[in-house]
Amino acid sequence: MKRIKLEVAYDGTNYCGWQIQPKDTTIEGILNEKLGSLLGEEITVIGASRTDSGVHALGNVAVFDTETEIPGERIARALNQRLPDDIVIQSSSEVKDDFHPRYQDTRKTYEYTIYNAEFDNPVTARHHHFVYVPLDAERMRTAARCFLGEHDFLSFSTTGSPTKTTVRTIYECEVRQNGRYITMRVTGNGFLYNMVRMMAGTLISIGRGRKDPEWVRELFLHPKRGKAGPNAPAKGLTLINIHYMDEEKEAD
Amino acid sequence: MKRIKLEVAYDGTNYCGWQIQPKDTTIEGILNEKLGSLLGEEITVIGASRTDSGVHALGNVAVFDTETEIPGERIARALNQRLPDDIVIQSSSEVKDDFHPRYQDTRKTYEYTIYNAEFDNPVTARHHHFVYVPLDAERMRTAARCFLGEHDFLSFSTTGSPTKTTVRTIYECEVRQNGRYITMRVTGNGFLYNMVRMMAGTLISIGRGRKDPEWVRELFLHPKRGKAGPNAPAKGLTLINIHYMDEEKEAD
Repeated sequence: MKRIKLEVAYDGTNYCGWQIQPKDTTIEGILNEKLGSLLGEEITVIGASRTDSGVHALGNVAVFDTETEIPGERIARALNQRLPDDIVIQSSSEVKDDFHPRYQDTRKTYEYTIYNAEFDNPVTARHHHFVYVPLDAERMRTAARCFLGEHDFLSFSTTGSPTKTTVRTIYECEVRQNGRYITMRVTGNGFLYNMVRMMAGTLISIGRGRKDPEWVRELFLHPKRGKAGPNAPAKGLTLINIHYMDEEKEAD
Repeated sequence: MKRIKLEVAYDGTNYCGWQIQPKDTTIEGILNEKLGSLLGEEITVIGASRTDSGVHALGNVAVFDTETEIPGERIARALNQRLPDDIVIQSSSEVKDDFHPRYQDTRKTYEYTIYNAEFDNPVTARHHHFVYVPLDAERMRTAARCFLGEHDFLSFSTTGSPTKTTVRTIYECEVRQNGRYITMRVTGNGFLYNMVRMMAGTLISIGRGRKDPEWVRELFLHPKRGKAGPNAPAKGLTLINIHYMDEEKEAD
């Protein structure tokens, strides 16, 4: 028996999110099915991030156990031949049998992309959120800096997240403007349910002038569930990568 | 009667190109149909660039004549409400009744986008061409400079283009690298059928080391139809905009 780690990229448009569902098509469901037919055993993957319906990923992580004799690093190419075009395995490798994608020290990076113009751009519309009200990227940048460090993100979580603590640490939060695109890139040690989309929605409220950049500090000082936002649409969100800090230490 | 000019953006993935077809769905066909139902008259648009199946646009141009009393600049918003999500009118305006989108002094700008990595990126796969062989962007940049100026592009045209001359002028041809994306941006006074895709295919051949950057000069010195290339896939190509030089002069 060996444990294989996959880096999984997908266009989430046509999927009901990561997590397997009885009837709907999900990334997890497709991976189990295609790995099962490739390896000739029943396969159950465990995903690092159970992304929502419509959210995209470049580097989500999944692991599974298998009896196969196919070398770990060969599985990516073989599996890609069976997967639909909108799911692409970026790498596969054998990991220690106690490696669990969710119970480790990780840093996750997400990007949220906004297209800000009078009319939408259909070429990239599947992976940006269109905002026609003019946004002030400089105000958004000022506000983004307030996210850095350790804070209670209760205001940025939606009802019923079953989590012990709502404190998270943000290592990087940048707003970049490239023509009509405004992108928020954020790296943290973990994110509450809908937290990145609530952060993006908060920056949009600030960018359009409805709120001041100082509002972010106020949301941390007087936290209340769902106070931030609004929750920006899923299609603008991409999980860029997940960094496993232990792997990094071992590589040193 | 007035003549209206539209700037048209579309994701070409689900269309059989611009030009109207008896059975297949095309951009021109959809525009005629939706304008007809909006304005209550039979409308026939004339497109500036009859893009191929799968090619995208941010700023293709179409004109049509109408008896409507709706102000020209209002038509964009009204038409967008009827169009599918993958076609978006960027602007509409009244133009002189002798304005013809194809018989004028224009500068067209295209971008050709390549994703260069071991595995494809499904998030942007609808509008890039995936190349897994490593490309040397610096070699491509050197070759791109050879396109500048006036040249006989016969080698970059495919069989049967019914054109008087194959001489065209290129004002800008840049290769930019952004992570795993390599983009060729080219502006010219006109392009032969498949010429931009042949230019992109030529740069790819050079980038992967099959040909030297000097090959471009050789293709100009000893022109022969279809000698360049190969013809890179349609999905990587986007018509960025069409500049009407006369409009610019009038604006001065």
